[in-house]
Amino acid sequence: MQNNALMKNKILAVGSVALDTIKTPFGKVKEALGGSATYFSAGARFFSPVSVVAVVGTDFPKKHLALMKRLGVDTSNISIEEGKTFRWTGEYDFDLNSAKTLKTELNVFANFKPIINPENRFCRVVFLANIDPEIQHAVLSQVKRPSLSACDTMNYWIQNKKKSLVGLLKKVDIFLCNEGEARELSGEYNLIQAARWLLSKGPRIAVIKKGEHGVLCFSRESVFSAPAFLLESVFDPTGAGDTFAGGFIGYLAGAPSRINESVIRKAIIYGTVLASYNVESFSLKRIAGLGRLDIEKRYKAFQVLTQF
Amino acid sequence: MQNNALMKNKILAVGSVALDTIKTPFGKVKEALGGSATYFSAGARFFSPVSVVAVVGTDFPKKHLALMKRLGVDTSNISIEEGKTFRWTGEYDFDLNSAKTLKTELNVFANFKPIINPENRFCRVVFLANIDPEIQHAVLSQVKRPSLSACDTMNYWIQNKKKSLVGLLKKVDIFLCNEGEARELSGEYNLIQAARWLLSKGPRIAVIKKGEHGVLCFSRESVFSAPAFLLESVFDPTGAGDTFAGGFIGYLAGAPSRINESVIRKAIIYGTVLASYNVESFSLKRIAGLGRLDIEKRYKAFQVLTQF
Repeated sequence: MQNNALMKNKILAVGSVALDTIKTPFGKVKEALGGSATYFSAGARFFSPVSVVAVVGTDFPKKHLALMKRLGVDTSNISIEEGKTFRWTGEYDFDLNSAKTLKTELNVFANFKPIINPENRFCRVVFLANIDPEIQHAVLSQVKRPSLSACDTMNYWIQNKKKSLVGLLKKVDIFLCNEGEARELSGEYNLIQAARWLLSKGPRIAVIKKGEHGVLCFSRESVFSAPAFLLESVFDPTGAGDTFAGGFIGYLAGAPSRINESVIRKAIIYGTVLASYNVESFSLKRIAGLGRLDIEKRYKAFQVLTQF
Repeated sequence: MQNNALMKNKILAVGSVALDTIKTPFGKVKEALGGSATYFSAGARFFSPVSVVAVVGTDFPKKHLALMKRLGVDTSNISIEEGKTFRWTGEYDFDLNSAKTLKTELNVFANFKPIINPENRFCRVVFLANIDPEIQHAVLSQVKRPSLSACDTMNYWIQNKKKSLVGLLKKVDIFLCNEGEARELSGEYNLIQAARWLLSKGPRIAVIKKGEHGVLCFSRESVFSAPAFLLESVFDPTGAGDTFAGGFIGYLAGAPSRINESVIRKAIIYGTVLASYNVESFSLKRIAGLGRLDIEKRYKAFQVLTQF
């Protein structure tokens, strides 16, 4: 345990740990383990150690923390505060493309002011999952010169804290968002133009997630386009973007060589693979049971699906 | 001219030659050269000789036929009938994803009963572009044992001539349609399941076009997924699917070796390349000016965009 933050590839991930109530055409689940940091860590842990910075209420089931620990996730930065855990209630139509939020109950999350413990301030990689950009700034400023930093966001912050979010873009290496968010933030409909705008604000890499239509990865020198993995049954898309980010950032953090275009593209595919497993069940049910061999198997299947 | 139908790779393509009036957020055009067979031939001609079977009215501008001839397309099977040419009027919203048809005037197309001239009955490759499935049957039955046959369709025929269309699936090697049509025809929402249904009706290959989201190609043994080429400005998507089919079938018809999985995948990419050029302008404006080197250049750019 000592000095594990000094491990070159340890990721500090801040975001939500939540209880999700979800209805899809294929089933429903009540107060299941969810949240952006949860899904991120469940994907990243295959490649790199990850410590989650989050807050839950005293009602948070112990079994969920136990599951995260069993997956190898460092939960020592998840604080348990008096009150109720953040809850999200949503449902999906038959096309599963976009969630309809029925209820958001911030609860203890409303006053989340993360203090990174001294050990984790030396993490070399920081992932700022979708959360108030001011909290993202606060976390990033507590970490001593990370070698890789990345953030995600959502439309709510674009609409309500755009200045803070754009300020964050100056400070991170990688920015991830979905296509609607890229358009809204940049004011550009065309995704090449939207990405150019994003890159002009600071990050070296802009990743635009398109859900079932795959992902685009832009740098100043190159563009990479990957379709999604083709699945016969998609059960619940919740957390797909965060699991993608987990596979992507996790692989980059643990990459055997210097991060170059080839490594970035592999990381995108690992993210795609993790997201494809995630949507095959509710919550972490599918990805919690996976081994590294399952990841490699689907990576190869993705090559067969796409290479020519 | 003699015996050119005996050329191993000559394609007989039946479909519409039309006058399109189109409005997009980027401009408008009145009575421009369009039609499924027109776009198909403009794509296919880079790889294989192609003869178009269609009908136009006496009002059809001579310059359009001259352009097709100049592109190397055999127009000797385009009959000119007393009356007006088929006209389509449509417009696109900002997302360019789906056309809104404002007017369809069949005119001389309403009584189109193509008679294939004796020479072209020996074409080895037949493409049946989107048209009444009964006409597709009638054309196919006039060709002497083609080595490769393919057809496209649209929602109108699925709704109004489903039995005839399903009967056609038994007779063709390749079936192409867009994702909405695949779902509507098969009754399956998931595209893997939809493709399985299509293949169970006869064709060896089912190609599901997803517009800006790329294309899926299914055979009994394999699935290939390719994203679309990423463009900074898409001007008019009219004819993209037919130009795609032109590049795809054209390459297959002229393929240097036996048609195997590797050749099929290359053909899909050539189709993608042709479609990407097509949407950069109205009508044939962009693709009429291309040379084979432009095609190869974008094929290589597509590799750079997608390979990992």
